[in-house]
Amino acid sequence: MKYQIADFPSGPLDVYRKKASFDWKEMLRFIDEDEVLQFKDYIFKTLENDPLFARQPGEDVSLEKARELNFLRVKQLFRYNFLTNEEAMANPWKLIVLEDCLGMYDWSCLAKFFLNKAMFGGTIANSGSSRHKKFVESTEDMTTFGCFALTELSHGSNTRAMRTTATYDPSTQEFVINSPDFEAAKFWVGNMGKNATHTVLYAQLYTPDQVCHGLHSFVVPIRDPKTLLALPGVVVGDMGKKLGQNGLDNGFAMFHNVRIPRENLLNKTGDVTPDGRYMTPYKDPNKRFGASLGALSGGRAYIGRMGVVNLKLALIVAIRFSATRRQFGPKDTEEIPVLEYQLQQWRLIPYLAAAYALEFFTKSVFINFVEFQVGQMMKDKSDRQEELGREIHAITSSCKPLGSWTAQRGIQECREACGGHGFLAMNRLGSLRDDNDPNSTYEGDNNVLLQQTSNYLLSCFQAKRHNAVHIQSPLHSVDFLDDYQDILKSRFTAETMEECLSLQVPLDAYKWLVCFLLEESQKRLERERAAGRDEFEARNNSQVYFCRSLAIAYIEHCCLQRCHQLVSDQDTPAALRAVLSKLFSLYGLWSLSSHMATLYQGGYLNGRRPADLLQTAILTLCSQLKDDAVALVDVLAPPDFILNSPIGKADGQLYKNLWSAVLQNNQVLERPSWWKEFCSDKPVVGSLRSNL
Amino acid sequence: MKYQIADFPSGPLDVYRKKASFDWKEMLRFIDEDEVLQFKDYIFKTLENDPLFARQPGEDVSLEKARELNFLRVKQLFRYNFLTNEEAMANPWKLIVLEDCLGMYDWSCLAKFFLNKAMFGGTIANSGSSRHKKFVESTEDMTTFGCFALTELSHGSNTRAMRTTATYDPSTQEFVINSPDFEAAKFWVGNMGKNATHTVLYAQLYTPDQVCHGLHSFVVPIRDPKTLLALPGVVVGDMGKKLGQNGLDNGFAMFHNVRIPRENLLNKTGDVTPDGRYMTPYKDPNKRFGASLGALSGGRAYIGRMGVVNLKLALIVAIRFSATRRQFGPKDTEEIPVLEYQLQQWRLIPYLAAAYALEFFTKSVFINFVEFQVGQMMKDKSDRQEELGREIHAITSSCKPLGSWTAQRGIQECREACGGHGFLAMNRLGSLRDDNDPNSTYEGDNNVLLQQTSNYLLSCFQAKRHNAVHIQSPLHSVDFLDDYQDILKSRFTAETMEECLSLQVPLDAYKWLVCFLLEESQKRLERERAAGRDEFEARNNSQVYFCRSLAIAYIEHCCLQRCHQLVSDQDTPAALRAVLSKLFSLYGLWSLSSHMATLYQGGYLNGRRPADLLQTAILTLCSQLKDDAVALVDVLAPPDFILNSPIGKADGQLYKNLWSAVLQNNQVLERPSWWKEFCSDKPVVGSLRSNL
Repeated sequence: MKYQIADFPSGPLDVYRKKASFDWKEMLRFIDEDEVLQFKDYIFKTLENDPLFARQPGEDVSLEKARELNFLRVKQLFRYNFLTNEEAMANPWKLIVLEDCLGMYDWSCLAKFFLNKAMFGGTIANSGSSRHKKFVESTEDMTTFGCFALTELSHGSNTRAMRTTATYDPSTQEFVINSPDFEAAKFWVGNMGKNATHTVLYAQLYTPDQVCHGLHSFVVPIRDPKTLLALPGVVVGDMGKKLGQNGLDNGFAMFHNVRIPRENLLNKTGDVTPDGRYMTPYKDPNKRFGASLGALSGGRAYIGRMGVVNLKLALIVAIRFSATRRQFGPKDTEEIPVLEYQLQQWRLIPYLAAAYALEFFTKSVFINFVEFQVGQMMKDKSDRQEELGREIHAITSSCKPLGSWTAQRGIQECREACGGHGFLAMNRLGSLRDDNDPNSTYEGDNNVLLQQTSNYLLSCFQAKRHNAVHIQSPLHSVDFLDDYQDILKSRFTAETMEECLSLQVPLDAYKWLVCFLLEESQKRLERERAAGRDEFEARNNSQVYFCRSLAIAYIEHCCLQRCHQLVSDQDTPAALRAVLSKLFSLYGLWSLSSHMATLYQGGYLNGRRPADLLQTAILTLCSQLKDDAVALVDVLAPPDFILNSPIGKADGQLYKNLWSAVLQNNQVLERPSWWKEFCSDKPVVGSLRSNL
Repeated sequence: MKYQIADFPSGPLDVYRKKASFDWKEMLRFIDEDEVLQFKDYIFKTLENDPLFARQPGEDVSLEKARELNFLRVKQLFRYNFLTNEEAMANPWKLIVLEDCLGMYDWSCLAKFFLNKAMFGGTIANSGSSRHKKFVESTEDMTTFGCFALTELSHGSNTRAMRTTATYDPSTQEFVINSPDFEAAKFWVGNMGKNATHTVLYAQLYTPDQVCHGLHSFVVPIRDPKTLLALPGVVVGDMGKKLGQNGLDNGFAMFHNVRIPRENLLNKTGDVTPDGRYMTPYKDPNKRFGASLGALSGGRAYIGRMGVVNLKLALIVAIRFSATRRQFGPKDTEEIPVLEYQLQQWRLIPYLAAAYALEFFTKSVFINFVEFQVGQMMKDKSDRQEELGREIHAITSSCKPLGSWTAQRGIQECREACGGHGFLAMNRLGSLRDDNDPNSTYEGDNNVLLQQTSNYLLSCFQAKRHNAVHIQSPLHSVDFLDDYQDILKSRFTAETMEECLSLQVPLDAYKWLVCFLLEESQKRLERERAAGRDEFEARNNSQVYFCRSLAIAYIEHCCLQRCHQLVSDQDTPAALRAVLSKLFSLYGLWSLSSHMATLYQGGYLNGRRPADLLQTAILTLCSQLKDDAVALVDVLAPPDFILNSPIGKADGQLYKNLWSAVLQNNQVLERPSWWKEFCSDKPVVGSLRSNL
């Protein structure tokens, strides 16, 4: 049976809805198939109907209460079991859909749920063996609760420098876990603050011969599941308030000679025999270490998407607001919606275009990632599989910065574009910004990750230049580099603004840009080396303006490439191509405009005309998309209950909704509890003044 | 007696402190004279010694508690009476120093204090007459408490469109205050939420002949000072949680035929006789309205500075962190401070340069503002005074966006540059960002304000072109425009990176940039008009890439101009000139880099070399300033108690301070109150699952 898409309530947004150039329901069905729409609908309705998930917009919830509520909601998710493991295997995209839906409701809820399931359970499944199944099973019915402990107080990005030790004692066949000092305390571990009974712990493995075999992961019990009290030798606690995601209890732990059975070592990449000999199938310790951190790359692939989801929510709020907020007008008697102002369009619509481009892009990256994971599970040892791994690593390492930063800036612009009302907590732009914020720094700091991408590109480039290797990759994201010499000769040739409305213009420009930055980065590195700098310093001194820009340009091009495929694809409904083309062109031109200096610097642009044309094209596309903007956010919008923003509601009754939410705040009309402090105890002015 | 500047505690920051190229105490004395240093010290110590001002870093404080604490602290400020009115008159700069000091502690505290004193009391003093003195006097000993009500639910920027009415009833000699509907409820009014007993209220004044005389201000009692209960006919309440500044109770109010005496009209710009005739000294209603909103412009002048103060605090945290946080290194055995990375320098040091440039700039703008205010008080009716007013309006209208946006971006960069630890609430970067956030939208939305600046510039330009008027202004910020034709012929001529290290390079480039954008904006407007657009639309369609960029370029140039004066000034100590020059050059080049596309577009830059030189100059300056960075933030730093950030403490004991603060959190090691919910009530997986 075909899934029925409900209409939106009639109201002030009708004007714009009627002006839309496309059928929003067709777009919705194009983005999600019926099964997915139904699944989303089911999740959303379930949450809305469960009083445990009820909330008031902008409620003031204490840290303690936020942790409790989030725990209770996560427990309820076990009962709902929205997606069984079998269902997720049958349609892995549903896992992302579930994550999106829970995240739209509250990222803390998703994080708590998935840190236990994927980061604890998933890591054990991937890095352990059959002897560890029991740990996974006991988290499945919440007998125990898990977390993932890698980062330490004094080390985050430099994972190899972790200092927690696990020393094998053959006399009892146990590992002794120890934190040498508080700077090596595990830190920032989600679920560890109040809740987790077990952790996957990364520690330097020492055999009795005092040889260190590098970082390995172990299952370590930290709290008694019957009491939630810390186990002897474990000091475990809560880190306190964060800028966002406060439902999640991040914590720390120190270990004082805590003994765990030998079998708790997750032994896929290395094991210790009962008598204390170390064994590993990996000859190269770097490869062993890389393989053991596989769980992080799955998380990273999704973080870019988290940014996109946040950006979408913020845009729904800001665009519905802009379509209904009226301020000034050509005549004193009539005011126009602020969406009619060119400036407001230019502030918001490029981000809407980014949200669409990144929506499709992150989905396609996920599909690539699943392909790669299937290969890994099938133990595919082919060159293609290895190359695919490298390419996906390069893509996800830059897709996360792209998604999280675009969201960070976009949400801030949405907040400011809603003026004062954007500053009111109930309208949710603040919590979107706060909950999005860690996406830029956790699971690999954005700036550090970008180096992974540029390293990949530089290695492709060197292989070509030194060994004349033909550049071709499984996902074709770098194939064009093979023609870099010809591409570097290309120039901006558009002569009219109309030509610039085509996606081909930014695509061509990006190809040149990536080639230019790649060659320049390589030259820079060579200059640094020639100046006698060691490799560490040479790399560090080649980031700003070179490798960093290169990685960003590459991933933006990659995204545009796939946007181009999408609008060229025969399966893309003809009726949607026009609006999608406009969105993607706008995203391309707008992203490109942050690289204009480089385009001029390298001679791709010359003289006055190109910049004029590109700017006019951007403003033209903003203006063309202005009447589609409301319908475009309707496509992205979850139900009002999930969006949880009075000014973003689907009925567009901006002031009624806002006023009603304000009046239903807690103690809104009551005098303050401290009224006597004002009424009875008057200060004597200057009574405490001392003369200097 | 000379004020003694205390040394910082010895510790891990010593390495950098010893490397500094200048004496930080000399810089401190250069920025603030002894009297000011002593005043600051006294305020800080007083707050630190008063348990009412005690707080734990990152404490989780409920909204209710935040409001109460803030009220009690403000009451205590009455007792301390740090600055009497006479002292403020004798040295107006001390008023800014007091505001800075209270703001560094907590902006909510400053806001609550000054909204009562300046926005309520100050507006009455400026807009009323002797009959209103009693209202000011009764706030001075907190018999009453005031607020300032202009904005309504459905109108902010468009102040003229406010719909609250004040209708004069000659039979009782009263005004009847009425809110026509909830969309005209006063909204966003600071102090109104819980506390204020009186408001300065803006309403459309109607005389009995039903003629509307436009917006006027009235003193309206809203709560009974003896009980803090709302007065009959007034519905007044709290707006709830905001993204920041939650100690301040913003509120709303609706009025249902509330009667106030005729005398409560603030009658400086217009009055009503007992029998109901309207009288005003202003012939032009626009000028009358402008004069009545004078109080806003004082606030606006300070908001840019608020941004700078926030930026300074964030940089102290981020730079001390970067100097002590070590991650990776050339050898596996040794890690280097992250401040040594070129990328980290490039992320933070330009903002440090911005903080210094804007510190001096906002101070000089305040001095201009005081000069103007003195003229107003002296009833100076000269042309110069009028021109000064226009120029200051143009400067403050763009200085606010410059300060607030630079801070917004800079704090975010600081937060990300501190990695995960920047995301911990106790380190304060979150609250700095949140408390800074409204600076972009209140007291005039940044984007709307920028139009005030560009309008001023366009009017200067037109006067020159049409009437051959020589462009010269009291503060000389636009004098160079008189040579615009010659300036437009100038080109970037530097040939070496060393030349680009001079402030002259960005100064020259900015002069060209402002002239170019001014001419282009004018042309754009003319094209729009020629295409038949009315003035409203023509202006709106000339903002993006034109008028908006123009206003930003103008204010950045204005700031650089004054920086240049400062380093050229013989009173500036010779020993400080080198580091100041580097800071200002860096700020100039770095700001300029966001206009590179325009510089190429207009032909000021050509070919590859200029961009290469500018980029290399930026990186060179960052690297040269790297060893000064710690000393430069030491100069800006308030005591640790005020900064309230474990990772930003002056002793540089990063991990000890962080660990200690985490352990002293509330209930940090206790099991959660909801432990039984985990231990005893296990979920049955899928028990609530329904089959689709």
